[in-house]
Amino acid sequence: MIYLIFMLMSLLRNTLLLVVVLLIQTSLLPAQKYKFVDPKIGVEGLGNVFIGPSCPYGMIKPGPDNKKAANSGYSPDLDRPVYGFSQTHVSGTGGGAKYGNISVMPFSGDFESITQESLRTDEIVELGYYSVQLHKWNIQTEITTSPKVAFYQFSFEAESKKAVKIDLGQFLGETLIPDGREAQQFVSSEIEIVSDVEIRGYSRIRGGWNNGSAYTVYFSAVFEQPFSRFSTWKNNKLFPNEKLQIDSGEKTGAMMFFDDLKESSVRMKIGISFVSTLKARDNINKEIPHWDFDKTLAETEARWEDLLKRIEIDKNATDDQKTMFYTALYHTMLMPVDRTGENPLWENNTPYYDDFYAIWDTYRSSSPLITLISPSREVDIVNAMLQIYKHDGYMPDARSGNCNGRTQGGSNGEVVIADAFTKGLQGINYKLALKAMLKDADFAPGGNEEKEGRGGLTDYNRLGYVSNRFVRAGNRTLEYAYNDYCLAVVAKGIKRKGEYQRFIKQSDNWQNLWRDIEDNGSHGFIMPKDAKGNWVDSIQCNANNGRVDYIPYTPLAQDWPNCVCWWCGFFYEASSWEYSLSIPHDVAMLIEKSGGREAFRKRLDTFFDREYYNVANEPSFLSPNLYHWIGRPDLSNDQIHRIIDKHYNCTRSGIPGNDDSGAMSSWLAFHMMGLYPNAGQSYYLINTPYFKQTVIHQENGNDFSIVAKNMSDRNKYIKSASLNGKPFTKAWIEHSDITAGGTLVLEMDTKPSKTWGTSLLPPSKSDH
Amino acid sequence: MIYLIFMLMSLLRNTLLLVVVLLIQTSLLPAQKYKFVDPKIGVEGLGNVFIGPSCPYGMIKPGPDNKKAANSGYSPDLDRPVYGFSQTHVSGTGGGAKYGNISVMPFSGDFESITQESLRTDEIVELGYYSVQLHKWNIQTEITTSPKVAFYQFSFEAESKKAVKIDLGQFLGETLIPDGREAQQFVSSEIEIVSDVEIRGYSRIRGGWNNGSAYTVYFSAVFEQPFSRFSTWKNNKLFPNEKLQIDSGEKTGAMMFFDDLKESSVRMKIGISFVSTLKARDNINKEIPHWDFDKTLAETEARWEDLLKRIEIDKNATDDQKTMFYTALYHTMLMPVDRTGENPLWENNTPYYDDFYAIWDTYRSSSPLITLISPSREVDIVNAMLQIYKHDGYMPDARSGNCNGRTQGGSNGEVVIADAFTKGLQGINYKLALKAMLKDADFAPGGNEEKEGRGGLTDYNRLGYVSNRFVRAGNRTLEYAYNDYCLAVVAKGIKRKGEYQRFIKQSDNWQNLWRDIEDNGSHGFIMPKDAKGNWVDSIQCNANNGRVDYIPYTPLAQDWPNCVCWWCGFFYEASSWEYSLSIPHDVAMLIEKSGGREAFRKRLDTFFDREYYNVANEPSFLSPNLYHWIGRPDLSNDQIHRIIDKHYNCTRSGIPGNDDSGAMSSWLAFHMMGLYPNAGQSYYLINTPYFKQTVIHQENGNDFSIVAKNMSDRNKYIKSASLNGKPFTKAWIEHSDITAGGTLVLEMDTKPSKTWGTSLLPPSKSDH
Repeated sequence: MIYLIFMLMSLLRNTLLLVVVLLIQTSLLPAQKYKFVDPKIGVEGLGNVFIGPSCPYGMIKPGPDNKKAANSGYSPDLDRPVYGFSQTHVSGTGGGAKYGNISVMPFSGDFESITQESLRTDEIVELGYYSVQLHKWNIQTEITTSPKVAFYQFSFEAESKKAVKIDLGQFLGETLIPDGREAQQFVSSEIEIVSDVEIRGYSRIRGGWNNGSAYTVYFSAVFEQPFSRFSTWKNNKLFPNEKLQIDSGEKTGAMMFFDDLKESSVRMKIGISFVSTLKARDNINKEIPHWDFDKTLAETEARWEDLLKRIEIDKNATDDQKTMFYTALYHTMLMPVDRTGENPLWENNTPYYDDFYAIWDTYRSSSPLITLISPSREVDIVNAMLQIYKHDGYMPDARSGNCNGRTQGGSNGEVVIADAFTKGLQGINYKLALKAMLKDADFAPGGNEEKEGRGGLTDYNRLGYVSNRFVRAGNRTLEYAYNDYCLAVVAKGIKRKGEYQRFIKQSDNWQNLWRDIEDNGSHGFIMPKDAKGNWVDSIQCNANNGRVDYIPYTPLAQDWPNCVCWWCGFFYEASSWEYSLSIPHDVAMLIEKSGGREAFRKRLDTFFDREYYNVANEPSFLSPNLYHWIGRPDLSNDQIHRIIDKHYNCTRSGIPGNDDSGAMSSWLAFHMMGLYPNAGQSYYLINTPYFKQTVIHQENGNDFSIVAKNMSDRNKYIKSASLNGKPFTKAWIEHSDITAGGTLVLEMDTKPSKTWGTSLLPPSKSDH
Repeated sequence: MIYLIFMLMSLLRNTLLLVVVLLIQTSLLPAQKYKFVDPKIGVEGLGNVFIGPSCPYGMIKPGPDNKKAANSGYSPDLDRPVYGFSQTHVSGTGGGAKYGNISVMPFSGDFESITQESLRTDEIVELGYYSVQLHKWNIQTEITTSPKVAFYQFSFEAESKKAVKIDLGQFLGETLIPDGREAQQFVSSEIEIVSDVEIRGYSRIRGGWNNGSAYTVYFSAVFEQPFSRFSTWKNNKLFPNEKLQIDSGEKTGAMMFFDDLKESSVRMKIGISFVSTLKARDNINKEIPHWDFDKTLAETEARWEDLLKRIEIDKNATDDQKTMFYTALYHTMLMPVDRTGENPLWENNTPYYDDFYAIWDTYRSSSPLITLISPSREVDIVNAMLQIYKHDGYMPDARSGNCNGRTQGGSNGEVVIADAFTKGLQGINYKLALKAMLKDADFAPGGNEEKEGRGGLTDYNRLGYVSNRFVRAGNRTLEYAYNDYCLAVVAKGIKRKGEYQRFIKQSDNWQNLWRDIEDNGSHGFIMPKDAKGNWVDSIQCNANNGRVDYIPYTPLAQDWPNCVCWWCGFFYEASSWEYSLSIPHDVAMLIEKSGGREAFRKRLDTFFDREYYNVANEPSFLSPNLYHWIGRPDLSNDQIHRIIDKHYNCTRSGIPGNDDSGAMSSWLAFHMMGLYPNAGQSYYLINTPYFKQTVIHQENGNDFSIVAKNMSDRNKYIKSASLNGKPFTKAWIEHSDITAGGTLVLEMDTKPSKTWGTSLLPPSKSDH
């Protein structure tokens, strides 16, 4: 209304208008969420997040490359130069790097060298926008993006020789070792100067972390202003004025010179495609048919705003809290990547997503968060996974560059399917999904046991556990047991009794590796067993100058990478202390086997107090919530807030581990809302939120609010709760209660409640 | 010398020269071998051979398509129209069709319909040349080819409206069933009118017989004369003058009209590539940089001549014999296809071959024949197989469209490797080869057991045979046993004792399915066994109106396709009578188990007399030679000549079964020379040749001659033999004797010899 009055006034007082409108936008109207996103969070330390602009689930991710081994291309170390801006990146990953294709670089100079790099200053990083000053030549490079097209603006010094190179031989993770594990390998490239404003070509690369087969990134680059001269190159040899370097398995590129330029800025749009160069050009025509940089940026901001505003937090939250929360949502929606219409493998009329990197990381909290924010998106993602099963034989556990790989443990597609099923997502063929899950459970992937499916399945299906004949036997067994539980849940839901009975039984298989030993005061741990059924007490370790030694295997032992290779330990990236608590479907039985509630409480206390808990890795994601199962949500709460306050913040190193495509971020976002999902199951655990009010504006039109009454630094415990005005004594809530819309009110108090969350405990399989 | 004299004379009498030279060429000088090649042999009946022009191992195989389901595109049924000339075909295959991509079609008319087809007359089929009259419009289409480029010449009626269409939505083996087994599936296509003389684009297809993943055939088509109008189309909708139909997952194409044409002929060159459209154009520039149709044809003839002339047969052989022999050589060298420089999967600086279709067919006689004619080629092919192992995880047993699949029985790459190794081929990394073979032997292929590796391996390695839990358990067991023998031979040769001992033992595994039963007077057959070790006497058959019946399983039973699916029988495509004789490494033990020499002779007689022998399929390829192992090469001889004289000839139906990429043809060629290899081993069995003299001009420069002295219709048995003048009493000869060069003289007689070939029998494993 205020806005309307001013609009009317504007007819009379045009000069005043601008000032007033600006005032309104910055103070009176609700602040836009996207402005709280800070893509710099997590670019230092272990976060490895992508720093450049990207649309939600955006296919193109243009950004600076400072280091071949950097997963996101970026290095915060300012002593490292920018050697190019490539169009494809992933966010938050570890291990060998992937992508970094189609590298562009402005420079000042002549046909001197293919290598062009510069130190940088004045980095500006905002949602949808990246800017940097290339110190060597004083060139400002600005980037924004649409889903498949990057928009570059290079501002040169007036009198400089202005040039831009496109280098198809650059990519991340290159090593000199042929077929080096986790290294990307060059296959071929091709470049064509189509006109004095357009260049097309492609780069074909294989390998990388997932050891994928070859993928091809096609591009079309168009300039606003014609270049006056150019030189292509092949295999480091320059060919001035030669328009074409045809694919002969070698590295190619081109440099363009703008000798006659009147403006100081060169603008370039670069579209990519995974099917053809002409499709890449078409993507430009469709997404950015103009030269208005700010318009593209505004559209990208609007795309994000549409998603971010679906979760509205208390406007009185601190700026730091808002920044942490909305940045966490942003990180969650960078991947997987929407490649619909860009699938070179099969009929392209269904949703297609790539860069599941990895589901092992994202199934726990990222998928559930996407389901909460935009269930229709999650339906598309699940359907893409089913198409991958249908055509490639297995759902991915990880996938990148149009190729499945690698599996760290389980076949966690099962959890994603069960999560969708139990939360009632429509538009998924659950019969086909059951087939896909049964493929994992029944058919060993064979020759390459780290590509997809379940490695060590022959053991698992014969012995009920994976024996120490196989690497990662411990977490494989645990994860398969939970995968089986998820399979059973869906089987039951679609009335496939036989499968239900088989797999609900198999979901107890974790117990086959449960050894009743004591360690640091706690009893019972998942421990290695050989194929004959004997416990394995020690492992071979070659640590002492090549002398073969055996060292005891204990629940705190980390056989990797000290004794065996990173991927060769009994557990992947964690100890038995961590993994032994990871029984998401049967915490009640876990408690029983640990010696009952009191012993379990002690165990958890030891776990956190002695820092056996690893904040930086996914296997422990659920662990801080386990106190819920002994009726002590207040203790969960203490741990969660301690973890967040200690390890997360809104600085550049504000993410405590690899963000893993947003996994760490989504964990944070959920807990800041006071909810945490047990993925694969239909409920959320309730904890003290960081906000006095959170409103989830759902796709179905129903709003769900979480209100923390009287919350303060002192009033940090939930005394009681009500749902839509009725008493709500559980410390967990069903997804259906949320989708129905309504309000969950949490009454806060200074001390833990003796009643709330103490009786009706969260579900466990052995309850039934 | 005569030639020289005439040359001198020519200085004086130029006019006479031409006449004389022509005389010399047609009578006095040796006739060119390629002229005896008749590509029509095998295009009728079961042969399924490709009828169009092709270079040796040529990547492009342009030819007419008359029938979607035809493996070679061609149908001899003249009631079937030509609906296009596509650029990719295979030769001699069965099952679901593959390829048939980038279909071109001349027509007379206007923008009427995308469908253009015509009945045909006046087919002319010669090596390197195909011509047909399209009856509907009276257009002659002539085709010749270089390795990667097809050259078309369309001759229209003078006053007609001249047009050519390029249809990217056409391909062989299309069905309406989504994901139909063995059917090709459309993925996407793209077309661009680059100028008034050039069109580029691609077609992306998946599936087909090997159920392969998507492959892309890129093309560039250039016309000699500019077209005046054009229309592209997408999804059956015409877009006149629209230059571009971008990949959106739909069928596209273009038709070009030559309104202003002065000539009556339109000439078009079409290059293909598996990496890019520009590479396709580059292939044209490199291979046919002119418009001289006859020159291209002559070059292709010369390429063939260079290979064919390496085996020189008696010039007094009948024309029919020459035709049969040289056509057989020709068929052997159509596939696999040389795709060096066209590999989109990995670094392309090593030999790359595709269309192993299938090694199951070709390992027995095609590979050995290539080794004899051009060992350097076979080295390249083996190295390509090893690269495939290295990057795709397994050597192919079959491969097409850059994708492994399918396996009919064994992992017969082992036989190809052992054949190369025992014949001393240099330039192959046999350590890597052993790794590739061990991959087959140790790692079950998993999820898809018909793609590569060894299906049912878990049984085989645990039980020593494949049980009836798995399909094709019979021939899988037999073939794995022989594959293991081949592995053992190479392991021994490179001093890997452990592997040798393991696999030489496993090579006896065929005996685990040898059941001592009697059938039609013979004893002992390979029969099905269950996983518990019990013989299986009957199989379930649903033949009677859905009532489940069990029928006895006998050595003559064909459970497929009567009771179970084609691929689901105990044996693949043959009976136990056939397969039980297929123990190439241990015929001596086979004889012993059959009850000794006399019983074995009777068994073989029964086999041939009662026509249990199937001339049309590979499992029986060695069987006619088995009499050699009981010291009766004369009886082998009788069978072989009877088989050839009855089943092979030089008519259009002159090949008795699917030629299978030249497998049937190479069997014939060997036997016409009087040699037959036992693939995987280093020797050839000797039989009465069809020629009085055969000279093998070897790559190493050494000629090896086989002379059949006094051979006549009556003198059809070998009485005695000598090698380089020394008596040679064996009915088999080592490959090293051939490569050393020399002459094998066979003295012929009217009756079987009592001494020659009767004592030193061909090798068997159990001899040692």
